[in-house]
Amino acid sequence: MERPLKVVVIGGDAAGMSAASQIKRRIKTAEVIVVEKGRDVSYGACGMPYNIGYKGDIDDLVVLTADEFKSKRGIDVRLLSEAIGVDFNSKKVKVKSIASDREYELVYDKLFIGSGAEAFLPPIKGITNEGVFKLKVLDDARRIKAYIDDKKPKKAVLIGAGFINLELAENLKRLGMDVVILEKLDGILLNFEDELVDSVKEELSRNGVELVVGVDVKRIDESLRVETDKGVFEADFVNVAAGVKPNTDFLKNTPIELENGAIVVDRYFRTNMDGVYAGGDCALIYHRILDRNVYMPLGTNANKAGRIGGANMAGANEEFAGIVGTILFRVFDKGVAKTGLSLKEAQDNGFDAFKTTIEAPTTAHGFHHQGKVKVCLVAEKGSGRLLGGQIVGDAEGVWRVDVLAAALYANMTIKDIQGLDLAYSPPFAPVWDPILVCANQAIKRV
Amino acid sequence: MERPLKVVVIGGDAAGMSAASQIKRRIKTAEVIVVEKGRDVSYGACGMPYNIGYKGDIDDLVVLTADEFKSKRGIDVRLLSEAIGVDFNSKKVKVKSIASDREYELVYDKLFIGSGAEAFLPPIKGITNEGVFKLKVLDDARRIKAYIDDKKPKKAVLIGAGFINLELAENLKRLGMDVVILEKLDGILLNFEDELVDSVKEELSRNGVELVVGVDVKRIDESLRVETDKGVFEADFVNVAAGVKPNTDFLKNTPIELENGAIVVDRYFRTNMDGVYAGGDCALIYHRILDRNVYMPLGTNANKAGRIGGANMAGANEEFAGIVGTILFRVFDKGVAKTGLSLKEAQDNGFDAFKTTIEAPTTAHGFHHQGKVKVCLVAEKGSGRLLGGQIVGDAEGVWRVDVLAAALYANMTIKDIQGLDLAYSPPFAPVWDPILVCANQAIKRV
Repeated sequence: MERPLKVVVIGGDAAGMSAASQIKRRIKTAEVIVVEKGRDVSYGACGMPYNIGYKGDIDDLVVLTADEFKSKRGIDVRLLSEAIGVDFNSKKVKVKSIASDREYELVYDKLFIGSGAEAFLPPIKGITNEGVFKLKVLDDARRIKAYIDDKKPKKAVLIGAGFINLELAENLKRLGMDVVILEKLDGILLNFEDELVDSVKEELSRNGVELVVGVDVKRIDESLRVETDKGVFEADFVNVAAGVKPNTDFLKNTPIELENGAIVVDRYFRTNMDGVYAGGDCALIYHRILDRNVYMPLGTNANKAGRIGGANMAGANEEFAGIVGTILFRVFDKGVAKTGLSLKEAQDNGFDAFKTTIEAPTTAHGFHHQGKVKVCLVAEKGSGRLLGGQIVGDAEGVWRVDVLAAALYANMTIKDIQGLDLAYSPPFAPVWDPILVCANQAIKRV
Repeated sequence: MERPLKVVVIGGDAAGMSAASQIKRRIKTAEVIVVEKGRDVSYGACGMPYNIGYKGDIDDLVVLTADEFKSKRGIDVRLLSEAIGVDFNSKKVKVKSIASDREYELVYDKLFIGSGAEAFLPPIKGITNEGVFKLKVLDDARRIKAYIDDKKPKKAVLIGAGFINLELAENLKRLGMDVVILEKLDGILLNFEDELVDSVKEELSRNGVELVVGVDVKRIDESLRVETDKGVFEADFVNVAAGVKPNTDFLKNTPIELENGAIVVDRYFRTNMDGVYAGGDCALIYHRILDRNVYMPLGTNANKAGRIGGANMAGANEEFAGIVGTILFRVFDKGVAKTGLSLKEAQDNGFDAFKTTIEAPTTAHGFHHQGKVKVCLVAEKGSGRLLGGQIVGDAEGVWRVDVLAAALYANMTIKDIQGLDLAYSPPFAPVWDPILVCANQAIKRV
């Protein structure tokens, strides 16, 4: 009898657990061991800001527990178990049990690395003080919720104006806190067009969130006074969300190929090491419009990487179609959505591109409720090929980004978009959908 | 000096006014005359049920008045002016002024026929009694609103269970009326899959709307008692929506090609008569999936037909991409959406088709508000080509039909749909969007 396939998965979040599940589903006899350094696997991290703001039970975010993966799917999930090294020659993962402080080795035939990313903490004095948080893993959310319950903070300073802190701003306001956002750069959402970002700034202002850009945070003292080059901001709660970096320190000094710390993979999620696959926030991912790898650590991408990578580890031959860079988030009553490239991103990547931005209603003329959105389409001159789209406006109307994501997948031109048979129904869309309104303008400039 | 191009447009609603506007925009010197038998041009007819239910001002639905078309766009719009005949040889339209009862002729170089459709009134005794309405043109809505204001009816019987009466049911309930829907056929929404229609029936029932199918309405008496083979239904308000028929009686006995009363056009909206174009509810329209003309009288289709037909009349050479048959409406808190073909429609048209239906959440796992929708994908066996999609469920989630409309336009397969980079954001969509959940199931059966 053949010995069973030995699979090790490093990291028990979206990518890792998707991979583990795929392999076990396809090869029943495989021995699949997942080592996860934290206490949770398979949870909806993107829901954390809302769980805080709507005062949900933190366990609501858990999709499956480690025990459930064992009992339902036959996967040996080891929590508080950190991969601290890999020997790709002898095909061994060195694991440290955090609870027992014991180290041991796991032999693999196939390895999936889904070790994720960690919050980047800028070199600010006092950034580890009590009351200064990050919001990356479920334990971070637990800590924040316990602190809010206990200390009932009234003044939040959020360092970094990325989408996590924008979502958190809404949710801390929901809890009645004053919120100030400090951003080091001179603007926010720099991969969006200015005319759309203006709507986000207005929405923050309308909801009493103070946004300070171009500010250098020097120090956070023990009473949580945040000292900057633009004055001191008093706080009793601080969250830092200044980007993430791949969790790949344990791979340094190994022959696996990294790029800016992220694992290089092909469209099958194979690394350059034999039998070793990777995906999720620790790895690059193929971008369909750019036709090259990018680093874009998002939950959807991690799930797909795990699913397809896992299938391929189990013998499938699935080529990943690629991402087109779709992102969507809510800021109070507005939605902020993007897919593909901004004008600058397109130009930086060598496209002769132009953009067209319109504002249009999202409900029918005369309907009792009137919504509106701004739509920006970025396209290539001459060919008219769609390169990207952005939608900012009333939250109910920004779903249209998924239509543009489909259009990008299919390499549609502005002319194609004009031809789309989009729905018309007074509560949902006007007779000329905002996407069509924008395409009808853009076509004149192709 | 050349004499100006003489253009006549029959019908002043979506198709006709779009065509007139396009021509005038492209050829400033053109003399464009629109004859409209009613009192309104360019209004959002689909908004009428909501205007009744939310007690809006009926004029809110008017986009532009006849006077505005004259002053702003230089179009000679003649209201209460009915086209009663066309001589395609001598290129003349015979017009009857309803106000003055005068008849006269208009000579044209180019003619656009956008005469629309009228409500089909089944041969039921008493169908023209006072208190029995139809809801097709703005004057119908005016009459209904005046009647409701005056008589304050309490019991509505709606004859026909198409989307107009379903929308009206919601809105009459909003006004506090009891509502019974009587449908002659044995089911409702027969071009949807049963498992999705069940959700619509439940929503009607949950909202106290009585639906009776397979019922033969015999007679409506003067006190609005509706007599049927399933008993008598008391009413003080009746609306009949039993389908529409093209307004083309004035073209009978002319050589223009009709099919079941609808004008036959090509993908440039040309009829078989020299210089004569047609579009909107009086004409057929090209269906991209079926690769042939169909009759599908909807506002979006009419607008596109007018826009493209008008451009072509002014010298452009725009081929219409075709509809894919997208429809969307709301029934109380549920949305009902379809694009492309149902399983039966696909099979009836010679496709070796299968369907896959799932139910899935529309918000992230653990998000405080949970929505859900049923998604059905119809695809071709072997190739996996998408042929249609239906979405029924919480109104907030049914917009996804537009993603499927884009997929249909692009001839995507189920595999392609699996590859779409759809947005993930807790308030808007779970990490696996319902469309992807359905595609992940459907792929197993391709």
